[in-house]
Amino acid sequence: MALESLRYRRGSLEVLNQRLLPGQLRYERVGGVERAWGAIRDMEVRGAPAIALLGCLSLAVELEGGAGPSEDLGALEEFVGQKLGFLLSARPTAANLGREAERLRAFVRQRVETPGVTPQQLRESIIEYIEGLLEKDRRDNRSIGAHGASHILGRVPGGRPVTLLTHCNTGTLATAGYGTALGVVRALHQRGSLSRVFCTETRPYNQGSRLSALELRHDGVPVTIIADSAAAAAMRERGVQAVVVGADRVAANGDVANKIGTFQLAVAAQHMGIPFYVAAPSSTCDPTLASGHLIPIEERPGTELTHLGGVLLADPEVDVWNPAFDVTPHELITGGIITEWGVFAPSELCRAL
Amino acid sequence: MALESLRYRRGSLEVLNQRLLPGQLRYERVGGVERAWGAIRDMEVRGAPAIALLGCLSLAVELEGGAGPSEDLGALEEFVGQKLGFLLSARPTAANLGREAERLRAFVRQRVETPGVTPQQLRESIIEYIEGLLEKDRRDNRSIGAHGASHILGRVPGGRPVTLLTHCNTGTLATAGYGTALGVVRALHQRGSLSRVFCTETRPYNQGSRLSALELRHDGVPVTIIADSAAAAAMRERGVQAVVVGADRVAANGDVANKIGTFQLAVAAQHMGIPFYVAAPSSTCDPTLASGHLIPIEERPGTELTHLGGVLLADPEVDVWNPAFDVTPHELITGGIITEWGVFAPSELCRAL
Repeated sequence: MALESLRYRRGSLEVLNQRLLPGQLRYERVGGVERAWGAIRDMEVRGAPAIALLGCLSLAVELEGGAGPSEDLGALEEFVGQKLGFLLSARPTAANLGREAERLRAFVRQRVETPGVTPQQLRESIIEYIEGLLEKDRRDNRSIGAHGASHILGRVPGGRPVTLLTHCNTGTLATAGYGTALGVVRALHQRGSLSRVFCTETRPYNQGSRLSALELRHDGVPVTIIADSAAAAAMRERGVQAVVVGADRVAANGDVANKIGTFQLAVAAQHMGIPFYVAAPSSTCDPTLASGHLIPIEERPGTELTHLGGVLLADPEVDVWNPAFDVTPHELITGGIITEWGVFAPSELCRAL
Repeated sequence: MALESLRYRRGSLEVLNQRLLPGQLRYERVGGVERAWGAIRDMEVRGAPAIALLGCLSLAVELEGGAGPSEDLGALEEFVGQKLGFLLSARPTAANLGREAERLRAFVRQRVETPGVTPQQLRESIIEYIEGLLEKDRRDNRSIGAHGASHILGRVPGGRPVTLLTHCNTGTLATAGYGTALGVVRALHQRGSLSRVFCTETRPYNQGSRLSALELRHDGVPVTIIADSAAAAAMRERGVQAVVVGADRVAANGDVANKIGTFQLAVAAQHMGIPFYVAAPSSTCDPTLASGHLIPIEERPGTELTHLGGVLLADPEVDVWNPAFDVTPHELITGGIITEWGVFAPSELCRAL
């Protein structure tokens, strides 16, 4: 069984506490929205799709357990709205959760306005809607994996197993399952076409060495971790044939915001003549942003670089610049953007969708 | 007073125990060769010039204290040879120490063969020779700083203070004082021409955040630390105007072996149109190696990436590729190689010397 961020069946939800990784593998019960709020705030779960799903599923579990009004449609709608608002207060930058909450509210509104719907039917349809999100995320990731694997194999001469490099964590631990960039890695492995994947450590939170390497090894995928600084050397010395990363946001012109270091990898890949791919569900595309310059970049506390566990890594008084993301201009995404609908040239993605 | 790796006056030597940094600043007495051997093996001191000087100076301290035979020239020569051989066994890759030991042996041989030299005179001349090494390292670093500062200011329009980026530690903590790449930073700061220097963290040993930031802040130099992954973003977003790094070895064609990540920085600098400089004493040039392909690259234990202090950073069973160095091809060293003799085009350096 894969190492999943969430385990759900109707009425029951568990979250893998990622703060304990890699030392300890512990799934914890999420009985409702309040526990999910804490797990999101304390970063027991991370990755935009996983955060959104944990929040919505915790509401489904509460509804299945009979929480909230059962006599009145409007009261149930208000109950759902309040729960979603509370979930959104856990982390200010949980963009996917915000979008899913908005869509869920619209869905509820529409059901409430449908003639003849009973409160019990509304409750049931919300649970089914949320369960559909989980299924859609897994299905989309499998499509991303399949499209990406085919495209990469089509560009690599000889049909021999390929060596990839990836950054951060975009796998089962960041999504509902399978992963986006790691979905491409998994698809190649399942076809017998993956020689090895290099995972960058991904400072300062070490999602690559701590999470990606763990979940890939768990599934028997040949994986090697490297320092972030060793990526260009790995491309040159260890035969990397393609770089595949995830995305936090894609602008209308195809510029991509993703984990800090993505831009540097794209520059190195271009220098080495290696195709650079971004793998993300089409919902990551934000057509309201004309270019990557407009994407706001979160700057995180310097303590992420000066402290680790109980260890002091630097003079705690030193000035630190710690951007969480950077923007990769579309012209460096030479392989393409892999979505559940296929692989697109960056500048064509938003238009095609 | 600067934060120096070594404090020496005749008969007395202290080493700053860098394993305790940044939490604790402790100079420890080095009474002789045995203590220096331990300090080198346990990495209390690092940086090729500092290692070589610590070893040689510990021998000078022993000789000043009267150690070794005093009646016979040949016996004293043998004593010195044995001490140097023992020092060399501390770390297999201490290249500078090996070269200095060889030169010191040749110097002793020549003195022994000089008619009329007494054992006391030989002893005195060895101490003076070793003290000369210390002075030469400091003098050379000041020359490197001056040449580098002038060259960079000559290329930056407008004569306004410049923003630099550097990697690893090449400062007072890696040399006898002032530093090589950090010597250039210091020289610019002393001229009032440094706006800020960005220091990469430099995983996996964190010499940038742990050491460079510490010694620069100690001297009042404006310094900011960044994750290794943030270097290209810093070049683009924070106005970096030149990159200056050190070198472990320069091949005859100007290819440079240096701390892992140097190659990646050079690729990013070229992409951004920012000059890339290497600062190193001319002795770093090895004309016996035609190109960088011939420079052997040390691969270090994976535990450097999986463990830190008592903290587990990754699945301890995972495969790790952890090269200590990489090779930057000469064509990417667009600023030049800064030596104590001036700034050279990489391909001309070895010939010019």
